[in-house]
Amino acid sequence: MALTESQQQEIAAARATEARTLRPSVPALEAMLFQATPVLDNGFVRVIDYMGDDAAVVQAARVSYGRGTKAVSEDRGLIRYLMRHRHSTPFEMCEIKYHVKLPIFVARQWIRHRTANVNEYSARYSILDREFYIPAPEQLAAQSASNRQGRGNVLQGAEAAHVLDLLREDATRNYDHYVEMLNEDEAGQPVDPGRQGLARELARMNLTLNAYTQWYWKTDLHNLFHFLSLRADAHAQYEIRVYAEAMLESVEAWVPHCAEAFRDFRLGAVTLSAGMMAVVKQMLAGAQPQQKGSGLSPREWRELMAVLERPLGRDA
Amino acid sequence: MALTESQQQEIAAARATEARTLRPSVPALEAMLFQATPVLDNGFVRVIDYMGDDAAVVQAARVSYGRGTKAVSEDRGLIRYLMRHRHSTPFEMCEIKYHVKLPIFVARQWIRHRTANVNEYSARYSILDREFYIPAPEQLAAQSASNRQGRGNVLQGAEAAHVLDLLREDATRNYDHYVEMLNEDEAGQPVDPGRQGLARELARMNLTLNAYTQWYWKTDLHNLFHFLSLRADAHAQYEIRVYAEAMLESVEAWVPHCAEAFRDFRLGAVTLSAGMMAVVKQMLAGAQPQQKGSGLSPREWRELMAVLERPLGRDA
Amino acid sequence: MALTESQQQEIAAARATEARTLRPSVPALEAMLFQATPVLDNGFVRVIDYMGDDAAVVQAARVSYGRGTKAVSEDRGLIRYLMRHRHSTPFEMCEIKYHVKLPIFVARQWIRHRTANVNEYSARYSILDREFYIPAPEQLAAQSASNRQGRGNVLQGAEAAHVLDLLREDATRNYDHYVEMLNEDEAGQPVDPGRQGLARELARMNLTLNAYTQWYWKTDLHNLFHFLSLRADAHAQYEIRVYAEAMLESVEAWVPHCAEAFRDFRLGAVTLSAGMMAVVKQMLAGAQPQQKGSGLSPREWRELMAVLERPLGRDA
Amino acid sequence: MALTESQQQEIAAARATEARTLRPSVPALEAMLFQATPVLDNGFVRVIDYMGDDAAVVQAARVSYGRGTKAVSEDRGLIRYLMRHRHSTPFEMCEIKYHVKLPIFVARQWIRHRTANVNEYSARYSILDREFYIPAPEQLAAQSASNRQGRGNVLQGAEAAHVLDLLREDATRNYDHYVEMLNEDEAGQPVDPGRQGLARELARMNLTLNAYTQWYWKTDLHNLFHFLSLRADAHAQYEIRVYAEAMLESVEAWVPHCAEAFRDFRLGAVTLSAGMMAVVKQMLAGAQPQQKGSGLSPREWRELMAVLERPLGRDA
Repeated sequence: MALTESQQQEIAAARATEARTLRPSVPALEAMLFQATPVLDNGFVRVIDYMGDDAAVVQAARVSYGRGTKAVSEDRGLIRYLMRHRHSTPFEMCEIKYHVKLPIFVARQWIRHRTANVNEYSARYSILDREFYIPAPEQLAAQSASNRQGRGNVLQGAEAAHVLDLLREDATRNYDHYVEMLNEDEAGQPVDPGRQGLARELARMNLTLNAYTQWYWKTDLHNLFHFLSLRADAHAQYEIRVYAEAMLESVEAWVPHCAEAFRDFRLGAVTLSAGMMAVVKQMLAGAQPQQKGSGLSPREWRELMAVLERPLGRDA
Repeated sequence: MALTESQQQEIAAARATEARTLRPSVPALEAMLFQATPVLDNGFVRVIDYMGDDAAVVQAARVSYGRGTKAVSEDRGLIRYLMRHRHSTPFEMCEIKYHVKLPIFVARQWIRHRTANVNEYSARYSILDREFYIPAPEQLAAQSASNRQGRGNVLQGAEAAHVLDLLREDATRNYDHYVEMLNEDEAGQPVDPGRQGLARELARMNLTLNAYTQWYWKTDLHNLFHFLSLRADAHAQYEIRVYAEAMLESVEAWVPHCAEAFRDFRLGAVTLSAGMMAVVKQMLAGAQPQQKGSGLSPREWRELMAVLERPLGRDA
Repeated sequence: MALTESQQQEIAAARATEARTLRPSVPALEAMLFQATPVLDNGFVRVIDYMGDDAAVVQAARVSYGRGTKAVSEDRGLIRYLMRHRHSTPFEMCEIKYHVKLPIFVARQWIRHRTANVNEYSARYSILDREFYIPAPEQLAAQSASNRQGRGNVLQGAEAAHVLDLLREDATRNYDHYVEMLNEDEAGQPVDPGRQGLARELARMNLTLNAYTQWYWKTDLHNLFHFLSLRADAHAQYEIRVYAEAMLESVEAWVPHCAEAFRDFRLGAVTLSAGMMAVVKQMLAGAQPQQKGSGLSPREWRELMAVLERPLGRDA
Repeated sequence: MALTESQQQEIAAARATEARTLRPSVPALEAMLFQATPVLDNGFVRVIDYMGDDAAVVQAARVSYGRGTKAVSEDRGLIRYLMRHRHSTPFEMCEIKYHVKLPIFVARQWIRHRTANVNEYSARYSILDREFYIPAPEQLAAQSASNRQGRGNVLQGAEAAHVLDLLREDATRNYDHYVEMLNEDEAGQPVDPGRQGLARELARMNLTLNAYTQWYWKTDLHNLFHFLSLRADAHAQYEIRVYAEAMLESVEAWVPHCAEAFRDFRLGAVTLSAGMMAVVKQMLAGAQPQQKGSGLSPREWRELMAVLERPLGRDA
């Protein structure tokens, strides 16, 4: 992460300005506010603003007039009940806004989550920074042999070195050519007065997908949990998962009861089909069901045994 | 509006609890926070929470690191530019949450605005209050003769009195029967131990559409402006317009520059088709175009002349 | 259900007009098209239009150029995989449009599903039919003693008869007064020339929540499955569940592989938290875990034992 | 556009399969179905499926039982009324699905329209084609001097040639290195058995933003019009505008009355603020208002005079 001095000063100035408010306020999140948590080599996540807290979820579920005098333990129980039974609307009553710096190929996955508000830095209007993502050596993974959408072993030796060289050289060269085509200095004046300079909206097409962009991204807690359930999951691509994990930390500071319920009933939960449940019940009754005759496909059987941490059985 | 004493105490308690925050804070809206603005005979609107301010719109449009040091006048100019050119995403960066008490037939119009978060008081789970909307005499309008979707003259004399009697008696009787069918006292015990009591989710169907419900309703500033452009408009039904007007006042306290731009470029604006603009240009050039030959239908012509406050012309 | 003769003729005329199309077409759904399936006493569901079929889901998942030549069995396997792993976007590629007649209190639950397109019959503009929902005697349930949001035993004898009388009389009287206040005959002329008649947008507030309304409702298959997972579920109120069940039948005619996968992996599926899975694994290993020490709350323990169809254990 | 022979055969096969349907059907759009309209150098738009027609908009607005027997001219009038008065829901009742091949930087603008369904070709799962967008010489524009977000003169001579060389060489080299890092032949076997090959989800980051991707994109007519109003507009970037224009042609074949109303009341329309309307009325009354004293800012004044095709006046 490379915040310039002036950016750091802007953040410090924002943190120095305190106000009094009647709104629900969360000291643990206030302590993080505006500060950039580094993610990947040049990215970050920072919380810019938030609305609501654990009690606001309870208050909305009850459509109550005040902040309530019920015990905190009762609030926790209600939140867990709401999460377990997939009541989504009370969680929509909390809102959070992030400023994120991220590689473009990560932004392209992220933006598929449509229920959010986004303002992205415009490369049509402005010039992007000279920053691109180069994986750390331990993240330079081969294609998975078993999963068309996953990673296998980490590349080693000459192959790893060559890949890193290619990624770095290509991103750098393309950025340099981007700047050359623009032909603009910092004041917007031509570097070479003999050239007109290509329009920004065209020159940007020469950038690589590991170039960094940034955006303001705002969503409600329910939709954030949906995002996190997909992106903080082990099947998510590493480069977006690290953002999700950094955001989950801010959620734990912000709404600890909701975050706990989310971990228990969503992130760590398992969904079993009716057919899978039938097999589990047979096992609990002492039978030894096999894939054949179970009604499950071999693939479903393997998924179930993996979840139960059981051997695959004779015929699978 | 009929807040009970305990509801008023809950609101007073919420207003007594101040915190320190680093978030953008708006004193003029803090002064209103939690307090109920009466609307219609038994309804209200109160602001429960908010996120962002005028500067947050600018900050998001610039994807900037801090709150910025630009002049306020520059912020106002940018906000007006964004509004005029229908840039919607920066306005999505502000969020507001209301608690509203409103008649069910108003709620049914309101809920058609889908881009919002809602938690409604559940008549499946709880028992509704004994409150219904009875129009004030000056709102008791006849059907419009010219507009199938509008109001005409105010009813007078015996007809007005009879309508008010019918509305009041039917709502009251139906509510009384609702309670009778429920057969529950405040502690949830049967009033008449010889009866079981009808399920709440069924008994509610006996209520009239002027019974009051309530909800928490949360939306972003862009979608709120869309709601207000339709519902604070002269064509909106009076009973929802008064809610929109009460909300517009809170928006003016909250984000004065945005609210001003909204009034100028949305609420008071007029959209003219290409054909209408052609007529305006002919008029400005000194010609006297008539409906025939203008390319506008008689209805479009009438709408244009009304907007220009011009007579309809010879042939229209 | 009470379709008038002219409505039946309109439906027959629509069914008589056949066209040739290159679009995916589903004979089993064509056979149902436009025809009203009765629901409740006066309601119905009819399919008005549809887009896509099982193969369209596969085609979108593969972003392919043609309809594909892969085996049907392979399509089924891919659809099941997509459903099991919660890939939602391919299911969004199918769309269906319904015309529904339903009681207003059911419409108020239904409309909470926001990701759909709706055109409702306007009681601001038109006059509603003289139809209201009166529950069949076997649906006249008491409030559940254990579940604040559910039904208990069916009311019997005098209580049942009294409730039915109240519902019928109140709905009828309120409708009659609605018509009286409107003072309009079928041609829009005053019935009593001495009165002006109340505006339609006001008179409607006298109607009861069991009056029937109707709408066109259109959604994609993913969001329809979400609706059905909540509303065809045993916890849904009976009066909306019967609509969901009628719609599920049309889905089975339309996209049989998707519908089968939905039944297996969504409707009949169970989600277990990490803590619940730990208990299941202990049981499978031959241990006899009890609620105390399980990390589950008594309520979570009861829910798990119910799902596993096991006794609650010593201490629960 | 470079469809392979097998892709062309798939399209031909789809066009050869006709079915009978009771659904609304539009011969002019059927004639286009599945066929690729070339856009830019390697892109295309093709209509894959559609639901509804002009009459379906009218039918939904009326919530009617059949297709209606009203005159076509009446339908056209109603559609124009709905468009003029921004009734959006009836237009949501038509749906269309496109298959689009487009450069990634165009896809990034496009995806900001959130109210649509999308399935994009996955570079995490598959390997992208060796195709990138290189602007035609007449599109190689300089940065606009007056508009930070627009294009100026076309580059000429050596500068143009150099820019084209850079774009072509960088895109080609980066694609070649992408393939080299992947180390996969068409059968998924290693090209160089001594290397593991980088995971697809990582290798893709070396591609440039002018590489082509493709997706299925489905939306309703109301949201399509919103997309077209922004992207078929003169202020839209050329590279997305050409897609919007190709889509607008398909809309004209599909729903001619809606398309005509859209052109009249949206695409060619002008919105004037209350202040601007006041100036127009003064002019129509024979006065000669100037910017000073008009209440309009100099920028607003210039925008108004441009719309009216009038000189700026003495003081502006």
